Amino acid sequence: MSVISIPKVNGDRLVQKLATLAQIGKLPNGGVRRISYTPEDLLARQLVCEWMSEAGMTVSIDAAGNIIGTYAGARSAAALATGSHIDTVPTGGRYDGALGVLAGVEVVQTLRDNNITLNHPVKVIVFTDEEGGMIGSKAMAGRTVSDPEYYRRDDGTPIQSCLERIGGDWSALITAKRTSADLAAYVELHVEQGGILEASGKQIGIVEGIVSMNRAAIAITGRSNHAGTTPMHLRQDALVVAAHIVLAVERLAKETPGQQVATIGILNVSPNAANIVPGRVDMVLDIRDLSQDHVDQLVKQLQDILNRIAVQTKTDIQLTSTLRVEPTLATPLIQDTIAGVCQTLGLSYCRLPSRAGHDAQEIGRFTNMGMIFVPSYGGVSHTEDEYTSPEQCIHGANVLLRTLTRLDAVL
Amino acid sequence: MSVISIPKVNGDRLVQKLATLAQIGKLPNGGVRRISYTPEDLLARQLVCEWMSEAGMTVSIDAAGNIIGTYAGARSAAALATGSHIDTVPTGGRYDGALGVLAGVEVVQTLRDNNITLNHPVKVIVFTDEEGGMIGSKAMAGRTVSDPEYYRRDDGTPIQSCLERIGGDWSALITAKRTSADLAAYVELHVEQGGILEASGKQIGIVEGIVSMNRAAIAITGRSNHAGTTPMHLRQDALVVAAHIVLAVERLAKETPGQQVATIGILNVSPNAANIVPGRVDMVLDIRDLSQDHVDQLVKQLQDILNRIAVQTKTDIQLTSTLRVEPTLATPLIQDTIAGVCQTLGLSYCRLPSRAGHDAQEIGRFTNMGMIFVPSYGGVSHTEDEYTSPEQCIHGANVLLRTLTRLDAVL
Repeated sequence: MSVISIPKVNGDRLVQKLATLAQIGKLPNGGVRRISYTPEDLLARQLVCEWMSEAGMTVSIDAAGNIIGTYAGARSAAALATGSHIDTVPTGGRYDGALGVLAGVEVVQTLRDNNITLNHPVKVIVFTDEEGGMIGSKAMAGRTVSDPEYYRRDDGTPIQSCLERIGGDWSALITAKRTSADLAAYVELHVEQGGILEASGKQIGIVEGIVSMNRAAIAITGRSNHAGTTPMHLRQDALVVAAHIVLAVERLAKETPGQQVATIGILNVSPNAANIVPGRVDMVLDIRDLSQDHVDQLVKQLQDILNRIAVQTKTDIQLTSTLRVEPTLATPLIQDTIAGVCQTLGLSYCRLPSRAGHDAQEIGRFTNMGMIFVPSYGGVSHTEDEYTSPEQCIHGANVLLRTLTRLDAVL
Repeated sequence: MSVISIPKVNGDRLVQKLATLAQIGKLPNGGVRRISYTPEDLLARQLVCEWMSEAGMTVSIDAAGNIIGTYAGARSAAALATGSHIDTVPTGGRYDGALGVLAGVEVVQTLRDNNITLNHPVKVIVFTDEEGGMIGSKAMAGRTVSDPEYYRRDDGTPIQSCLERIGGDWSALITAKRTSADLAAYVELHVEQGGILEASGKQIGIVEGIVSMNRAAIAITGRSNHAGTTPMHLRQDALVVAAHIVLAVERLAKETPGQQVATIGILNVSPNAANIVPGRVDMVLDIRDLSQDHVDQLVKQLQDILNRIAVQTKTDIQLTSTLRVEPTLATPLIQDTIAGVCQTLGLSYCRLPSRAGHDAQEIGRFTNMGMIFVPSYGGVSHTEDEYTSPEQCIHGANVLLRTLTRLDAVL
C-alpha cells in the first residue's frame, strides 16, 4: 500500500450515520439515553451490525457481547482494530463512543469503495457496556471479575441475562479473551471530553496514555448530637471535618506541580437532619494522573493531612482504597504514526493524556494501542451539550484511516 | 394552701411508670421508637389515659388530638397546666417528653392521695406530635398552618387521617385554641438534652426562655463536569464552595461573642457521582439564640460572606429563610417561683436558655410559661443513651408539684 493512494472518507455519510444513531434513545433536550442492555441499546446494536455488513464486514459477537466486524486482509495475520462503544450514560451526548464506532465503519467502507485491501484484516469493535464497567474490553483483556454478582445491574438484572440479550454468554466469557496474536494494534478515535484542544486551538489530540484512576472511600466518624442544645465547643461535627478534607484535597491537587486532578464527587451526611449535628460523613475521592507513582505520593500526603485533622478535631477518619486502575500508556510507534498523518493532512495537533477512561485502556494492556482525540465544544461531555463539529469528526476519521494504513505497512 | 403541708411525690411510682412507658416502642438497643400516630403511639396514649383516670383526672381529647387530663379545682377558674409529649424521634430515648407527662400525672396523683384540692383546676396535657411539628401545642396557640398538605406525613398519610386515629378532627382544629382565660399558667418539666447542668453540677435548671429557631436553605450552583477531564483551575465545584460555607458558619458561631449555635445538618450533593465534579449542593442552616435580633445580625453577616464566596468562586449561592420561630421568654414570676421551690427543697439550680424546641414555646405565646430542667447524662438526647437518674427525675417532679401549688396561691 502506498500512502499516496489513500482516499478520504465520505464525510457526509459519516455525519449522516452519527445523526441517525443519535435518534435511538434521543431525549427531549437533544441528549441521548442509550444504556447498555436496554431496548435502545439493542436497537442501536442491530443498526450498527447492518452498517458493518453494508461496509463489507463479516459480523460476529463474542461471549462478552462485543460486536466484531471484520474486513478481510490480504494476508492471514493479526488484525488492526478500531472501535469504541455505543452505550451512553443516562443523560449523555451524541459523540461519546458513537464517533469511534461509526468512524471505524466509515474507514472500512471507504477502503471497500476504493477496492483497497490491507495486509492485515481490519476489525471494528463495539465494546459492551463501556459506561457501566467496561465488561466488553475487560473480557478481551482477560481482566473481568469472576463473581457475576459484581456485574449485577442496579435494577437487579443478573449479568447472565444482560449478556444473553445481546448474544453473549457469561459462562463462556473466557473465550472472549484476546492477545497481541489476535490484535496487532488498536487505535480508537474519541471526542476529547475535555477542553484542552479547544483552548489550544488544535484539531487533533494524540493521546499519550490513559491516566490511572484511583478511588478511595473516606469515612469520618464524629458524634451526632442535638443541633440546639450542643454548644459549639463541645461538638464533634463530622461535616465540619469533611469540609476541611474537601478543601485539603482541592489544595493538594491545585498546588502540587503536575497535571493531576482530584475530586470529592460523592458526599453523604448521616443522619442528614436539620436539627442534628452530623455524626458521620462518607465521601468518595477520585484521583487521576498519568503516573501511578505520583498518585500514590499524593494519597500518602493526603493520609498525613487526614491524620492531622483527626487529631485536631477528635474524630476518626478512615481512608480505604476502593479502586486502582493503573495507567495505560499509548504505544510510541502509534503516537508517532498519528503525528505523521496529521502532518501529511495539514492538521494541527498536540499530545495529551486522556483523563477519562476508555476501552483502549483495557486493550492497551495486551497489545499496541493509540487514541486520536477530536475537540469537544466547551470541553463538556456526558450531557446534551456535547458537540464536535462535522468537520472535526471527519478530520478524525481521516486520521484514523491513514493511521491504520500506515500501521498496516509497518506492523 | 400552706406550703408546709405539701407532700413529696411517690418516686417509685413515677420511676415505674417511666419504665413501663419505655416498653412501648422499645428498640433492641434500649432506645425507643414511638412516632406520632403509629400503633406504638396509640398504645402509649391509651396507657397514659388510663393512668390519668387512676390519678383522679377526667380525660378529654381536643380537635388537635391533645390528651387533656383535668383534676378539678376548688374554684372554677383558669387552670394550672403541665405536661409534655410521649411521641419520640425515630430512634429516641426514654425521658424526652415522657418525664414531663408522667411527672404531671404523678403530681396530680400525689395531690389526690393526700386529699389536696387546689384553687385552680390542674390540667396534664399530652401534646400531639411534638417531634414532628408540634401540631398539638400550635393548635392550642392558634398558630397552625391552614393548608393540610403542610402536615402530610412522609409516608403520604394526610393529617386528617392521622388526627382521626387519635380522636382529633382536622376540620374542627380551631376549637383546640386556648387563651390565658383557659390556662392561667403552664409549667413543663423536661430533661435538659444538653450538658450545662451536668457540667456545672446543678440539680435543677430554670429555663429563661426557649431560643428562636431559624432555618435557611442554602443552594449552591456551580457546574457539573467530568471529574477526569476537567482541569482543577477550570472547575466550578459546588461542593468545594459548600465546604467553604460550612467552615464559615462554624467560625461565625464560634467566634462571635454570645451563646448562639449554628449548624449545617443537611447537605445534599448533586449529581453525587464519583466521576462527576459536583454541580449543585443544597444545605440547611439552623441558627438558634435567645435573641432574635442577634440571630438576624448573624444571618446578615453570613449573607455578606456568601456574597464574597460567590464572587470568588464564580458560583451562584442563594440563602432562603425557611423557618423563623421567635424566641419565647419564660414568665419571670414562674422562674422566681421555681427558684424559691429549689431553695425550700435544698436543690442546687441555675438559670439557662432552652436551645431545643418544646411545646412550652407555643403555650408561652398566650399565657404564663415556665420550664424546669433536670440533667441529661452526657448531655445527650434523641438516642438510646439518653439518661436521667431516678433521683433526678423525682427531684424534678417534686419541684413541679411545689411550683404548681405556689402558683395556685398567687395567680
